[in-house]
Amino acid sequence: MFFLIYLILSVVDVKLRCQERSPTRAFLCVFMRTIEWVQETRLVKLIDQRQLPSKLTYLHCNTVEEMADAIRSMAIRGAPALGVAAAFGLALAAQEASTCSPEEVIRRLKQAGNLLESSRPTAVNLGRGVRNCLRLLDQPDFDAEHAAEIFLEAAQKMAEEDVRINQQLAENGAGLIADGDTILHHCNTGALAGVDWGTALGAIRFAHEHGKHVHVLVDETRPLLQGARLTAWECGQYGIPYEIITDNMAGYFLRRGEVNKVFFGADRVAANGDVANKVGTYMLSLAAHESAVPVVCVFPSSTLDISMPDGDHIQIEERDPSEVLGIELNGQRVTPEGAQARNPAFDITPRKLINHYVTENGLITPPFSQK
Amino acid sequence: MFFLIYLILSVVDVKLRCQERSPTRAFLCVFMRTIEWVQETRLVKLIDQRQLPSKLTYLHCNTVEEMADAIRSMAIRGAPALGVAAAFGLALAAQEASTCSPEEVIRRLKQAGNLLESSRPTAVNLGRGVRNCLRLLDQPDFDAEHAAEIFLEAAQKMAEEDVRINQQLAENGAGLIADGDTILHHCNTGALAGVDWGTALGAIRFAHEHGKHVHVLVDETRPLLQGARLTAWECGQYGIPYEIITDNMAGYFLRRGEVNKVFFGADRVAANGDVANKVGTYMLSLAAHESAVPVVCVFPSSTLDISMPDGDHIQIEERDPSEVLGIELNGQRVTPEGAQARNPAFDITPRKLINHYVTENGLITPPFSQK
Repeated sequence: MFFLIYLILSVVDVKLRCQERSPTRAFLCVFMRTIEWVQETRLVKLIDQRQLPSKLTYLHCNTVEEMADAIRSMAIRGAPALGVAAAFGLALAAQEASTCSPEEVIRRLKQAGNLLESSRPTAVNLGRGVRNCLRLLDQPDFDAEHAAEIFLEAAQKMAEEDVRINQQLAENGAGLIADGDTILHHCNTGALAGVDWGTALGAIRFAHEHGKHVHVLVDETRPLLQGARLTAWECGQYGIPYEIITDNMAGYFLRRGEVNKVFFGADRVAANGDVANKVGTYMLSLAAHESAVPVVCVFPSSTLDISMPDGDHIQIEERDPSEVLGIELNGQRVTPEGAQARNPAFDITPRKLINHYVTENGLITPPFSQK
Repeated sequence: MFFLIYLILSVVDVKLRCQERSPTRAFLCVFMRTIEWVQETRLVKLIDQRQLPSKLTYLHCNTVEEMADAIRSMAIRGAPALGVAAAFGLALAAQEASTCSPEEVIRRLKQAGNLLESSRPTAVNLGRGVRNCLRLLDQPDFDAEHAAEIFLEAAQKMAEEDVRINQQLAENGAGLIADGDTILHHCNTGALAGVDWGTALGAIRFAHEHGKHVHVLVDETRPLLQGARLTAWECGQYGIPYEIITDNMAGYFLRRGEVNKVFFGADRVAANGDVANKVGTYMLSLAAHESAVPVVCVFPSSTLDISMPDGDHIQIEERDPSEVLGIELNGQRVTPEGAQARNPAFDITPRKLINHYVTENGLITPPFSQK
């Protein structure tokens, strides 16, 4: 109800901001961007994705520690968004250090970089966002007194770049979608996974907005249900027809010939083409491969990590078992008291199961030798 | 807490009933059997599996309609248990008709058979239980005046037979389990899936009770979470070490070599060896096959249906979408208002993915030509 009122109240503002956008995107402008800098209060505002779809709330991060917490707790997630979150986290650290000595500014920024990079280990964009920004410290004309402005400018530039790249990704990925396709989609890879547009779901949205009829089978993506919560919600906002399925139903629909393509993003892509992505990607790809349904992986080239020869070299984050155990039905916790659980957040999908790799530079083919 | 007190209070009674049983089975006697006839009140008492593991409650069925409701709503489920539930349902119908004319008794029993058989379409044992009992009507000495006793006796005989067959199944299946095995198990196939023992989990329990060290990866089995709710609970009761995983994590653990065997039951096995079983079995088997991990399907021979040449002839039940959409985290429904879902309850696992078929008669190999 609150969200409805919020939507109605926001439409006036939306209309002003969205006149150049297509009608199906109007509602999106209410909440987009996923993450942004608020100049008046000098803090970072981001959509708290843990609350969606029941509540659209924003989290305000004043410090780098708050940003690291937001990343760790997955208030913000998705490989492209994490890169930008890291950059904004460093901007906050630079702002916090603005009265310190130049040496202290540098020490604090490096410390902040370590904190951010260690908050989640698998998505390459997070560490890359940190390292790209910290390179500013090595520039001969780096002025520690203006570190706050310099790092903020870098973060804002990265956010703009993210939108531009993801729009291009969306257009490139949409080229693989035919009118009438039913697409099985894993996890959330939409606008919420980046600053805007995202990756795989961005491609589906681009196809939809350009008149192709698409139907999405949204797998719920246990344990944190990014599919059932976020992708379903985004599809609803865009007006894309969708149905939710449990992850373990994908094989049923693939085997019956009800799926034309499988789409997902990536958290880290190794040089040989192996993909680390949200857990479940591997079993889904295996089932698609078995049914000769094309598997499409959509990601910005910044997700390539050619320092990893193959997927087995990629560190897989194991998260708290409570994420698996905390599932409820009808208001009741369903797992027995004292139950143990495992919780790997990602898995590795080998190169042989993936048909198309889509980046902002077009379709690419492994082995990959450069960014 | 209520359950703990209940357990403690029950131990006195348990001790009397379980002196001949091994200690690890003591607690089980509290609730076993899954379904039984109560002579004093002349009704059927069954464990309401929708309430487990948070509450151990019993459902009392006085009429065949109540039994059909219990089957439809999955208060009782599991292929072997459904066969016995059908037989007890007919016994209730015969009891209800005890003051009717012979013609009316027969008419009502046939009507009850149709009701029960249509309550769930995929498990062969349900229809087979109905048809086996209704054959009594064709016997030359069938006495409609004593239909209540005749059908009750048949149901009780079937329940005893179920326990005997499942014990043999358990022993046969345990022969495939090595000391130290980690076994990935799908859905619930334990005592709760039969009158006692069940199928695949019965084999794991048999191995455990005979001194083999086994560790079970319990996949949660969305949407109704029979793994996280029932199998986890049963493992806890038997003292078998286990960890819960989401269904989509199975491939991760298989690919890393952390799993020695995959075990599950069956709802209907076609002549060529294709298996209809709880949705998710197919993707799990595919991932096991890819990692050369043996896939073991354990079922009573009554689950064979040689009238089905292959799995694609088996009707797959689609259940209400609310079972998929009703998932909650932290007390909040997670799917957007108005979301649609698909909900096939089973899938087909082709013969080529299954390494061992275990029945009460030992290991069998397709094609199957007789029960």
